[in-house]
Formats: sequence, structure tokens, C-alpha cells
Amino acid sequence: MPHQATTKYIDVNGIRTAYRRLGQTGGTPLLLLQHFTGTMDNWDPAVLQPLAAQRPLILLDNAGVGSSHGETPDNVDDMTVHTIAFIEALDLKRIDVLGFSLGSFIAQQIAQRRPELLRKVILVGGCPPGQGAATFHKVIADIADKSGADVLLQLFFTPSKASQALGMEFVQRLSFRDERGPNPQQQVFTAQYLAIVGWCESVFDAAALHGIPHPVLVVQGSNDTMFPTPQSVRLFESLPNAQLSLYPDSGHASLFQHPALFTEQANYFLTAQ
Amino acid sequence: MPHQATTKYIDVNGIRTAYRRLGQTGGTPLLLLQHFTGTMDNWDPAVLQPLAAQRPLILLDNAGVGSSHGETPDNVDDMTVHTIAFIEALDLKRIDVLGFSLGSFIAQQIAQRRPELLRKVILVGGCPPGQGAATFHKVIADIADKSGADVLLQLFFTPSKASQALGMEFVQRLSFRDERGPNPQQQVFTAQYLAIVGWCESVFDAAALHGIPHPVLVVQGSNDTMFPTPQSVRLFESLPNAQLSLYPDSGHASLFQHPALFTEQANYFLTAQ
Repeated sequence: MPHQATTKYIDVNGIRTAYRRLGQTGGTPLLLLQHFTGTMDNWDPAVLQPLAAQRPLILLDNAGVGSSHGETPDNVDDMTVHTIAFIEALDLKRIDVLGFSLGSFIAQQIAQRRPELLRKVILVGGCPPGQGAATFHKVIADIADKSGADVLLQLFFTPSKASQALGMEFVQRLSFRDERGPNPQQQVFTAQYLAIVGWCESVFDAAALHGIPHPVLVVQGSNDTMFPTPQSVRLFESLPNAQLSLYPDSGHASLFQHPALFTEQANYFLTAQ
Repeated sequence: MPHQATTKYIDVNGIRTAYRRLGQTGGTPLLLLQHFTGTMDNWDPAVLQPLAAQRPLILLDNAGVGSSHGETPDNVDDMTVHTIAFIEALDLKRIDVLGFSLGSFIAQQIAQRRPELLRKVILVGGCPPGQGAATFHKVIADIADKSGADVLLQLFFTPSKASQALGMEFVQRLSFRDERGPNPQQQVFTAQYLAIVGWCESVFDAAALHGIPHPVLVVQGSNDTMFPTPQSVRLFESLPNAQLSLYPDSGHASLFQHPALFTEQANYFLTAQ
């Protein structure tokens, strides 16, 4: 199973950085950038497998997260710097990137600062800068007394019976992996929280988004509460070459609720001329 | 070529009604309902062929349009009644429907009145009732001094060089068919114009849309001027089981500008469990 890929380490500016490679050996690699408090173990095998069948995948624990050493920065800028340094440390010349949630912020930043490193971009559960700080504070406050799977079910799926059932299937799929890295600690939570709030409170810069030249696939659930769905519509409207997909009865983790639909669309998008 | 299917006729409530069947013989048939002033000849072969490769297709000239006899009604209700009678005259028990523009209005009406006749619904360049009358008046006034391909290029594509070039390719593909039906006359234009304005000026009924139980794929261009893109977002938000796809740098005829992407998504949607 591709999800069982071994964890490797590489020195990135003095930080021992954990990553995994899986899937095809030829073709443009797809780098996956993970969500708030997520590690490489939080990628759904039902998403990884169909993607890995058609292309090389690279999973990353950013600085301080999961199996990586170092401290998690409290801002998206420094996370972006580390991610770019990681891409260069692996000597990758041009890749595709899939950024989910916080990962989508980093993907937007790489696309603006180092456009030549990227071929195509997928933004899932995303948000442009300058949007949604109040919403984010509230949804995180609402999970203060929850833990484990309950957090994922509340933040990632809608309250509907169907969405919650698909959420449980997702949670069960995550437990398939034998060799797991450590879970993020309080420092990661606090630093990433500050980074997200900083992103949401920064200035919306339409010109910067309009300057992103890459083909972009924007994917979102119909009812995301974390980074509300209209923010993905705004991302789509602001990007000059974007395609938008909104999925039925789904929240922040639209890609994990609808893995077959998502990987069908993602593979087609990445393969199309 | 599937676009060369022979025109057939069937009596529908005393009206000699023209249609064509093409594609696979097994599986759920997909009925295609055409846009304002369009006939069966206006379906893009680049859309028909990939769809026909996977399922039976049925093209229809509604009452008074193209090769069909009768008068074109000046309201969506009567168009819907005739379409339902056509489905029953062919003894079809359960079909899929693809409604484009005016055709999407009829598809919404069939889904509400005779839900048991439909399995899945695709709405392209659509609009819920009660939206967009002022916009429609204006865009039609703006083409008063244009004719032929110029009308299609202005109404269906964006002003960008890339979109106009893809529009020209579409216009050229339409001319591939040897045996063509008659073009719509002034009565069709006037009656369909009134029907569209009546639809746009009717009452938006969120509950009626929420009552449509079918899986629905809503497709639209990024910059439709005829039925502006936010109206498709509203359709998506109002339907309980819908998926939305918005395509890059495209106008009303998103499906003809991006035929490979559209047919990939439509075939996947229609085939998925």
C-alpha cells in the first residue's frame, strides 16, 4: 500500500525534515501540504492511492510537525521558506502541489514567490489572505472540549448523517498505517493557530492572486465552516486560470469525504494538457 | 460519427416532433435539451461523441423548433409539458437529462413535476427562476446588429483571445454535419425570448429547488454574461444534492469551450454510484 511508504529524512537549513515518497517514479511529482495540526499520517489512503497510481507523491512534515525536528513557525511566510528549501534540498526542478487548508496558504505563497518551481496547483479547503479570522476563532473555540476523532468529525464534515458516516470511514482509513510518526504537540497547535490567524488578518491582495499564472484547481465542500465555501469561490474568481469544484453536503475535508470524485478530478486536472 | 444520426419523428400530442438517437444502445439514456434558438444541429460533436461512447443519447427539437412541427410556446411550463409527453411517447421510464441554458429551465421543471422520470440531472449555463431578467434583456439587445457566428462568439464565449479562438473551433465543429434541419424562425426567437423573460421574472422558490432529490451536476463558465455565474452558484446552494463545476475564462457555453473537461466530468458523474 502506498500509505506504508517509509519515512525518510533530509537536512533542510539545519532542520532534520521528515518526508515520504510513494507512487510512480516517472512524471511530475505532486507535493502534498497538510492541514492545521496534521502530519503525513493524516493523508487519507483513499486519496493517496489513486493519485500515487498515476504520479510520484511526496508527503512532508513541515518544520516542527510530526516526525520533523525544529520549531513550527508562527507565520505562513516562514513555513513557505522552509517548504521551498525542502523542494530545493530534494533537487526538484518543477513540481505540482496540493495544499489542503493551511497547506493551501503555503501553496499560494510558493506560486507567487517561486512560480517557476510549480507546474500546476490544487487548493482544497482554502482561503485567500485577509479572510475569515472571526470564523476561524469561533470554530476552534467550539472544539475546546473535544478530542481525537470527534474533532475531525466536527471540523471536517457536515452535521448530516451521511457526512458523519463518511467521516467515520475516513477516520477508520487513517488507522490503517502501521508505522506512525508522533502526533503534534501544543507548540505546533499554538504556532499554526497564530499563522492561520495572521493569514486571515493580513490584507487581501487581488493583484497578487491575479499574478499567479499556473492552472489551479480549487476544491471545496458545500458547507465548510472552517474556511467558509464563499472564500474558495473568491479564490477562484481572483485567480486568472482556475477551475472550481464544490462537492455535495460536505465540509472542510471535501477531499476525504469524496475521495473517488476528488482523485478523479485531480488526476484529470494534473494530466490534461 | 454520432453527430450524423438520422432525424426521426414521433407524434407527441398531435405535434410531429423531431429527435435523434445516437450512442450506446444499453444503459440509461441521456436526453439533451437545447439553448435559446438552438436546434439539434447546435450540439457540439466534441461533446456528443465522448458522451455517446458511454451511453445512449437522445437529441430533441422541442415543439416549433428546427425540424419539429407546431408552435414554440412562450413559456417554460408548456415546453416542459411537451418534453414530458415526448419522453412518454418514446416509452422511456427513467432517463438522465442535460439541460443547457433554456434547456436547464425545462430540466429543473421536469425534476420537480415528474421526479420519477429522472435519475440524474446536469444543468449547464443555468439559472433558477426569478433571476436575471434585466441582464438577459441587455445581452440580447447588444447582439441586435450581429448575425451567425458573431452572435455565438459574443453570447457564448468571453472576449479573451483564447476564449474567442476556442469559440471559432466550436463554430467550425458545428458545420461538420451534412444533413441539417431548418434554422429557427422569428416565431421561435420571440416565443423563447418571452419564455426566458417569464422564467427570470417569476418567483425564486428555494423550497421547490430544495425538493429536487436527484444528484445534480451544475456547470458554468467563470464569466457568463447571459445568465451570470453567481446564479449557478445559487442553483448549487439551493439544491440538496448538487455538485458545482466552474470552468476557467469561459462564458455561457462552458461545455463547448471545454468539451474534454466537461465530458470527463459529465461521464464520471453519470456513471458514479
